[in-house]
Amino acid sequence: MVDVSHTHWSTSRWVREIETRLAAGDDEQPFVNIKGEDRREFDAIFLGGGAGGRFGAAYLRAMGGRPLIIDRWPFLGGSCPHHACVPHHVFSDAAAQLLLERTFSGQLWFQDLNGKTVSILDVVEMFRRGRTGPHAFMNFQSKEQLDLEFVLGARGRILDAHTVSAAGRTFTAKDLVLATGARPQALGVAGDHLKGVFDYASLVDDLDYEPGPTAVVVGGGKTAIEYGCFFNATGRRTIVVSRHQPLPMINDGETRAYLLARMEEQGMEFCTSAELTAIEGDGQGRVRVVVIRTPAGEVRVATDFVFLGLGERPNSEEAREVLGVDVDAGGFVEVDGRMQTSVPHVYAVGDLVGAPMEMFKARKGGMYAARNIMGEDAHYQLSDYPDFMHTHYEVCWLGLGEEGARERYRNVVVLKLPPDNPDDQAVALPAGDRMMLYAMMKPHLSGFQKLVIDGTSRRILGAFHVGCGAKDGFQYLAPMVRNGLTVDEFGEMDELFLNPSYFIQLCRLRAGSKVLRDL
Amino acid sequence: MVDVSHTHWSTSRWVREIETRLAAGDDEQPFVNIKGEDRREFDAIFLGGGAGGRFGAAYLRAMGGRPLIIDRWPFLGGSCPHHACVPHHVFSDAAAQLLLERTFSGQLWFQDLNGKTVSILDVVEMFRRGRTGPHAFMNFQSKEQLDLEFVLGARGRILDAHTVSAAGRTFTAKDLVLATGARPQALGVAGDHLKGVFDYASLVDDLDYEPGPTAVVVGGGKTAIEYGCFFNATGRRTIVVSRHQPLPMINDGETRAYLLARMEEQGMEFCTSAELTAIEGDGQGRVRVVVIRTPAGEVRVATDFVFLGLGERPNSEEAREVLGVDVDAGGFVEVDGRMQTSVPHVYAVGDLVGAPMEMFKARKGGMYAARNIMGEDAHYQLSDYPDFMHTHYEVCWLGLGEEGARERYRNVVVLKLPPDNPDDQAVALPAGDRMMLYAMMKPHLSGFQKLVIDGTSRRILGAFHVGCGAKDGFQYLAPMVRNGLTVDEFGEMDELFLNPSYFIQLCRLRAGSKVLRDL
Repeated sequence: MVDVSHTHWSTSRWVREIETRLAAGDDEQPFVNIKGEDRREFDAIFLGGGAGGRFGAAYLRAMGGRPLIIDRWPFLGGSCPHHACVPHHVFSDAAAQLLLERTFSGQLWFQDLNGKTVSILDVVEMFRRGRTGPHAFMNFQSKEQLDLEFVLGARGRILDAHTVSAAGRTFTAKDLVLATGARPQALGVAGDHLKGVFDYASLVDDLDYEPGPTAVVVGGGKTAIEYGCFFNATGRRTIVVSRHQPLPMINDGETRAYLLARMEEQGMEFCTSAELTAIEGDGQGRVRVVVIRTPAGEVRVATDFVFLGLGERPNSEEAREVLGVDVDAGGFVEVDGRMQTSVPHVYAVGDLVGAPMEMFKARKGGMYAARNIMGEDAHYQLSDYPDFMHTHYEVCWLGLGEEGARERYRNVVVLKLPPDNPDDQAVALPAGDRMMLYAMMKPHLSGFQKLVIDGTSRRILGAFHVGCGAKDGFQYLAPMVRNGLTVDEFGEMDELFLNPSYFIQLCRLRAGSKVLRDL
Repeated sequence: MVDVSHTHWSTSRWVREIETRLAAGDDEQPFVNIKGEDRREFDAIFLGGGAGGRFGAAYLRAMGGRPLIIDRWPFLGGSCPHHACVPHHVFSDAAAQLLLERTFSGQLWFQDLNGKTVSILDVVEMFRRGRTGPHAFMNFQSKEQLDLEFVLGARGRILDAHTVSAAGRTFTAKDLVLATGARPQALGVAGDHLKGVFDYASLVDDLDYEPGPTAVVVGGGKTAIEYGCFFNATGRRTIVVSRHQPLPMINDGETRAYLLARMEEQGMEFCTSAELTAIEGDGQGRVRVVVIRTPAGEVRVATDFVFLGLGERPNSEEAREVLGVDVDAGGFVEVDGRMQTSVPHVYAVGDLVGAPMEMFKARKGGMYAARNIMGEDAHYQLSDYPDFMHTHYEVCWLGLGEEGARERYRNVVVLKLPPDNPDDQAVALPAGDRMMLYAMMKPHLSGFQKLVIDGTSRRILGAFHVGCGAKDGFQYLAPMVRNGLTVDEFGEMDELFLNPSYFIQLCRLRAGSKVLRDL
């Protein structure tokens, strides 16, 4: 072990140390930051230092408690910067950039990308080199600014509800917080172990060849579509195989249709009501062909690159076996609003407790666990939260879609851009930051946005945005909408024009009327 | 005149009609949309159909009133889509895109732009072709969706507080709303009429040659810097000449310094405490040299391209002469909170009434004028509003900067990214949408963000963001901050990670502590 408790490494020093440790592989030399002079018992051991564990520990420490984080990786932050959110955002930025460059190929200063394929391996390797930066920052911030104690790079073993061993030592605490996360769900068909079959984690860890001209993506949810759009943007034939219609989580049909039309326009192929039934190898352990069962019969597709976006399985085995915590049918650990499991003194947070697999839920779960451990009686209510994903665009949504609103309200009013009009989407709006070249030259690519309103109470029921730059806004809109934001209040706000979402000004154009109408 | 009152032109039809009219130049054939069957007197004539006039008329119409808009251009929307906000955003998007392509020239799929100059003329011509789209949309929406009556493409002449003539007809109304806007301030030195001297309006209207390798920008405010960054991003030597330090409106020194450092890193030259004293021609009416008086003496710069960003002058002459409305020292029309001028029945809105020259102020001014004309007693209070500009980045700010906060509060706490640390800005954060490639490969280019907090009340005092994607959020944050948003409330929100601004999670990391500390 490396005792770092008396060091003050900079982020660049942490980069070097983490890289050395990751390159060494299984050779465990954990970084241990435990203050020998602090004789207090730990208030909590956070098993796992990802979003839930790290934020939980930080909150508990800020409250004056003493947390210990144990993580198998030599860095804090968990799967997000290593496998999940960060690479996903890198690939989505690449997809957005490539859509722009392909759309305007040969115009203005743009290079000609027509017919050209962009390397996936280069982008993955760029990410692989770059990801140690965020890792290092997490270690730096956690140690120097958040005053957290940790054992990093050592697998923790649960002994009981108060005791975890790691790096040859045994640690005890009043309470235990399980934050061991989840892993990608396997496909479970013949050949799914072949080289060339990836999930979001193995793609960034293992890819060591340039994928050929065809990518096959399995799944219709966020991960599958997000990665599929990136593969498509690189110039590859991209086939999405899913049992159901893609993007079911986007609860507004018009928004979903806009997105799917844009993907199809870019050449993505959707094979729905379909299943990937087998993966065939080339005799040397590599994927050569996939077999897809479709309503029209079996299809065989030659490919050396398969991506699985099938959801998550919880890393709950050890907690079940050693502690006996209750889990649901999917194996996810069950918790109450205090983030307590069925076992006294044992809490659980993050992906381990199930959907939504989002950062805010993990972090806030950690915060609520910390508050309860420190003696408060605090209950985490997962309220209506905003949501997002990426295609070639950023997509945000919250509340009710038009269909759901019409089921529950008699007087639904819709404000949207582009509006219904004889030229359909060929109007030069919406236009906003990073969408201006589309607005000027290819208007139908410049996005889509929509507000769903109860015309009677004048309250906002739902909001939908396809484009760029609305994510931050949706974070802040969500509590406003929960608190009853009306068209009239919207119209009193100060827009920063050309604002990515035109909600403020659309509302203002209608707010003068006692009887709201569509726009 | 062309009576369009019985037509239902699509946006693409409007594009063709507007283009024909603009190409014909002074040959006035106004589009007249007046409902012959509506015998009511007009409630208000809006002289000018830009942001203030159009939104004011729309609001008045929604309230059940009858407005008439008269505009000298054959389209609604005013200077924004023709000369101002829209081209500015197009050029800023180009600057952001070119910064990315230059930074990663020759890496991944990026073309090599090293040493290459990008055409300004091409981008201007692209905008010139594209801008009719937004114009057409405004006409379409105003007529078909907002039910507005108008005379477009005819100069209105004020006869008295109730009467305006245009297109050979005389129109009367109960009230008159002046919305005639502003125009760029001239330089007022020898040679400022030469070909090659532009402001934001003449640049997009008149540029007909490819500017040479050196651009000289006069001014240190938003417009000067925004256009200067675009010229720089095209690969030209760009010299910014200003009397004072640039970007005085950004009231946080650290944010301003980050921006200026990035501009200087891109090669922009700042010539401050300086004045452009003369522009010399080449004998054929074209700029050849500018003369700059600097603290170190006179400097002569060879250039064929000068851009003036000197602020605005109101188009108030006719209203002063005919109506005698009171104006301030700069000639801007004075109004009260009801948007009423010194002359009964005469209102004024938009750029004509002075700073801030922002869309929200124009539109809301129109709305408040409409409410008062329709009998309400409504007062527009210009409250603390969020603000923004573009450099190569999007920049947003609201409230107090750190310096101003420390003057007024004893216990100021700052949360920021990147944090103070031994590696300065070489840490891989912030990272958010459209900034990911920087975060991975050139972290110091990935942005800057900061919250300024009163540690005692725990309230947010100010927020600053450099990067991409925070504009929408700042719109919604502003009223929350005005209503007393605290660190603790911030920490309860649901972030959409990797959110462009990290304010929610930064607050959550500190919120557990009764004594707030910097981060």
